[in-house]
Amino acid sequence: MPEYHPLTETEAMALAVERTSLFTENAELFCQEIGDGNLNLVFHIKDQKSSASVIIKQALPYAKVVGESWPLTLDRARIESEALRIQRSLCTELVPEVYCYIPELAVTIMEDLSDHHIMRRGLIEGRRYSLFAEHIGEFMANTLFYTSDLGMNQQEKKLQQGRFVNPELCKITEDLIFSDPYTASPNNNYNPALQDMVDRLQTDEELHFEVAQLRYKFLTQGEALLHGDLHTGSIFVTDKTTKVIDPEFAFYGPMGFDPGAIIANLILNYCGQLGWIQDNAVLADYRAYLLDTIQNVWGQFESHFRRLWNEHDGDWLLNKKQFQDNYMLKLFQDTAGFAGCKIVRRIVGLSHVADIHTIKDAAAKEQAERMALTIGIALIKNHRQMKQIGEIIQTVKGV
Amino acid sequence: MPEYHPLTETEAMALAVERTSLFTENAELFCQEIGDGNLNLVFHIKDQKSSASVIIKQALPYAKVVGESWPLTLDRARIESEALRIQRSLCTELVPEVYCYIPELAVTIMEDLSDHHIMRRGLIEGRRYSLFAEHIGEFMANTLFYTSDLGMNQQEKKLQQGRFVNPELCKITEDLIFSDPYTASPNNNYNPALQDMVDRLQTDEELHFEVAQLRYKFLTQGEALLHGDLHTGSIFVTDKTTKVIDPEFAFYGPMGFDPGAIIANLILNYCGQLGWIQDNAVLADYRAYLLDTIQNVWGQFESHFRRLWNEHDGDWLLNKKQFQDNYMLKLFQDTAGFAGCKIVRRIVGLSHVADIHTIKDAAAKEQAERMALTIGIALIKNHRQMKQIGEIIQTVKGV
Repeated sequence: MPEYHPLTETEAMALAVERTSLFTENAELFCQEIGDGNLNLVFHIKDQKSSASVIIKQALPYAKVVGESWPLTLDRARIESEALRIQRSLCTELVPEVYCYIPELAVTIMEDLSDHHIMRRGLIEGRRYSLFAEHIGEFMANTLFYTSDLGMNQQEKKLQQGRFVNPELCKITEDLIFSDPYTASPNNNYNPALQDMVDRLQTDEELHFEVAQLRYKFLTQGEALLHGDLHTGSIFVTDKTTKVIDPEFAFYGPMGFDPGAIIANLILNYCGQLGWIQDNAVLADYRAYLLDTIQNVWGQFESHFRRLWNEHDGDWLLNKKQFQDNYMLKLFQDTAGFAGCKIVRRIVGLSHVADIHTIKDAAAKEQAERMALTIGIALIKNHRQMKQIGEIIQTVKGV
Repeated sequence: MPEYHPLTETEAMALAVERTSLFTENAELFCQEIGDGNLNLVFHIKDQKSSASVIIKQALPYAKVVGESWPLTLDRARIESEALRIQRSLCTELVPEVYCYIPELAVTIMEDLSDHHIMRRGLIEGRRYSLFAEHIGEFMANTLFYTSDLGMNQQEKKLQQGRFVNPELCKITEDLIFSDPYTASPNNNYNPALQDMVDRLQTDEELHFEVAQLRYKFLTQGEALLHGDLHTGSIFVTDKTTKVIDPEFAFYGPMGFDPGAIIANLILNYCGQLGWIQDNAVLADYRAYLLDTIQNVWGQFESHFRRLWNEHDGDWLLNKKQFQDNYMLKLFQDTAGFAGCKIVRRIVGLSHVADIHTIKDAAAKEQAERMALTIGIALIKNHRQMKQIGEIIQTVKGV
C-alpha cells in the first residue's frame, strides 16, 4: 500500500491507468495539474488519441489561504468521495461519477467535467442558465430530503451522521462565517473604506443575537447531509447541464444552509454586476434575471421537496400537512438567515468572491460591497419574521 | 479473550477478583443475580468477611418486555460505561464509579450502591428527599452544560457525539414515547376504562402537531450528551446522597429531555398518591412536597446551568445575555413538552410506572391515570407558550 505523499504527474497518470478502465494500453496520456494548490492537487489526465479523460483530486495535508498555512485533515477526501457517491445516487445527472477512492493517498478519481465551466465565472460574464434553478432545486431537494429523518430510515440516518462527523471543516465555517465578521478577528479582510459599516457590524447586539441563533443551529441541528459549501464556484454548468462538485464540507447540519449559500451567491453577483455591466438597461435586465433565478431556485426547491415528502411513505407523525407547512416556513427562514451570514462573510471575512473582489473601479467595488453588506445584515436581522421568497427579493431590490 | 456468553455467578465472582483490587485472597465471596432479567444480568458480589462489594452488570443480547423478546445491541454496555465515566468526571458524588468495562462480554464492573434505595420506591412510600432537587439540578446542569457546545470544545463535542450514536435505544424512545400512544399501535397497553381518552389522544390533530415538533427535536437536535432515561427508577437515594445510574440510552439529543423526564416522573407520583395515601390532609401535604420538589428541580437546574455558563470562558457569541435568556426559555419549553410526552406514554404506552400501575383500587387507579393523561396532554399542547416553572405547577394543581 503506498504511503501518503503528494503525487507527481507521472504517478497520477499511472493511477489513472491502473485504477480505471478508461484508457487502452496504447493511450497517449497528457497530464496537467490544474488545482489552485491551496487545499488540493487536481490532475487533468487525457488520452490524446481517444479523448478519454479523467480527474484525479488529491487532498493536501494543509490549507494555504492568504499566505498562511495550517494543517488540515486528509479525512476530508473520504468525506468528499462518500458525499459525492451518495449525492450521485440521489441525482445522477447533477453530480460527477467517482470511479475510485484511495484512502491511503487521499485520492479520488472522478469524471472529467472540463466541457463545463464554473458558474461563478459565467455569471460574472453575464451569462444566463435557464435550467439552473430547476437543476439546483432538484439537487437540494433530493440530497437534503433523502438523507434526513423525513426521507430515510431514521436508524440508518444516525449511523450515516456518524460517518460524516467533520470537525475540522466545520470549524472553518464556524469561524469564518459565524464568528469572525462580527468581532475584530485577525482573519478578517475587508476594504478599509467600509470601516464605518464594519464597526456597526461588530457592535450591533441585535445582529449578534440573530447570528448566535444561526451559529447554534449550525452547531447542533443534524437534519440532513449538507453539501456544506454550495457556492457558485462549486457548480459546473453548460447551457443544458449542471454539476455540483467539491462536497468536502459535507456533514449533518441544518438544511437551510445549502439553499442559503446558493441565494447568497446569486445576491453577491447581483451586487457585483454594477462593476461589470456599464449600460444601465443591460444591468437592470441582468439583475432581473438574477432575481428571477433566486425566486425560481427557492420555488423549485420547495416544490420538489414537498413532492418527495408527499410521495414518501415515511414517518406518519411528521407526514402531516400542518407539520410540513410549518417545517417549510422554518426552513425558508433558516435559508434567509444563512444567506445573510454568507453574504456578510464574503465582504468582511477572510475569503471573498470574484464577483465583487475583482472589480477594478474602486468606487464601484465599494458601492457593490456596501450594497451586499446592507442586504446581508437585513436578511440576518429579519429572517425569523420572513414568510416567503418574495421578501428576500424585496430586500435586495430595496437597497 | 473470552467469547460473549451470559455469565454464571461463579464466573462473575472470578471476574470481580481478577478485574478489581477490592477483594483479598482469602475473601469469602457471595454472589446474587439481582437484575430483572429483561435487559441485563446484574450480579451483586460481596465479601462476607471484609464487607467489600461490587456490582457486575452484563448486557443481554435481547430485550424482554411483556413476554415478547427482540434482539438488542450489546454496544449499549459500551455506551453506558462511557456515559457513566463522563458523568462521574463531571459530578463525582452523583454517579457510581466504573472500575472496569469488558467489551467482549458487554460487562461493566462498578460501585455497589446497595446501601441506597430506588427513588421511585421511596416516593411511593411517601418518603421525602430534601437534597434531591439540588443534587439532580447539579447533575443535569453539569452533564448537559459540559457536554454541549456551550461548555466544551466544539470540535471535541462532534467527535464525542460520534461515539454516542445509539440508534437501537433511540428507536425504543422514538417508538414508545413519540409515536405509539398517538396511534393504534400493538405496543400500547392501557386500562380499557380509558378508551375515551385514548380515542381523543389518537385523533387530536393539534396534539399530533405538537408531538411531531418534539419528535423532530429528539431526532435531530444534538445539543448535549443526555442520560436519556432519567426517571426515578434510575435514581438511587439515601437521605443524604443521590446517585444516577443506567445511562444506556445516552446519546446527543435535546437538553430538555432529561429535566422533562424528572418532572414527568414526579408528576406521575403526584397523580398516583391518591392510591397510596388515604388521609386527605396527608395527601395534600405530600403533594405539596412533590410540587415544591418540581419547582426546586427546575430552579436548581436553571441556576446551576446559568452559573456554569456565566463562569465559563466559552463561545463569545453564545455567551451574550440575550442569547442565554432566550436559550433558557426554549429549554424550559422543551422540558415541559418532553415531560408531557413522558407522562402520556406511561399511561397509554408499553411501559408503565409502579406509582400508578400497582394501585390496587380500580377506581383510584383510573382516577390517577385520567389525571396524569390530562396533565400530560396539557403540557404537550401548551409547552411552546409556557414561560416559567410555575405554569407547570399550575397545570398540575388545576386538574
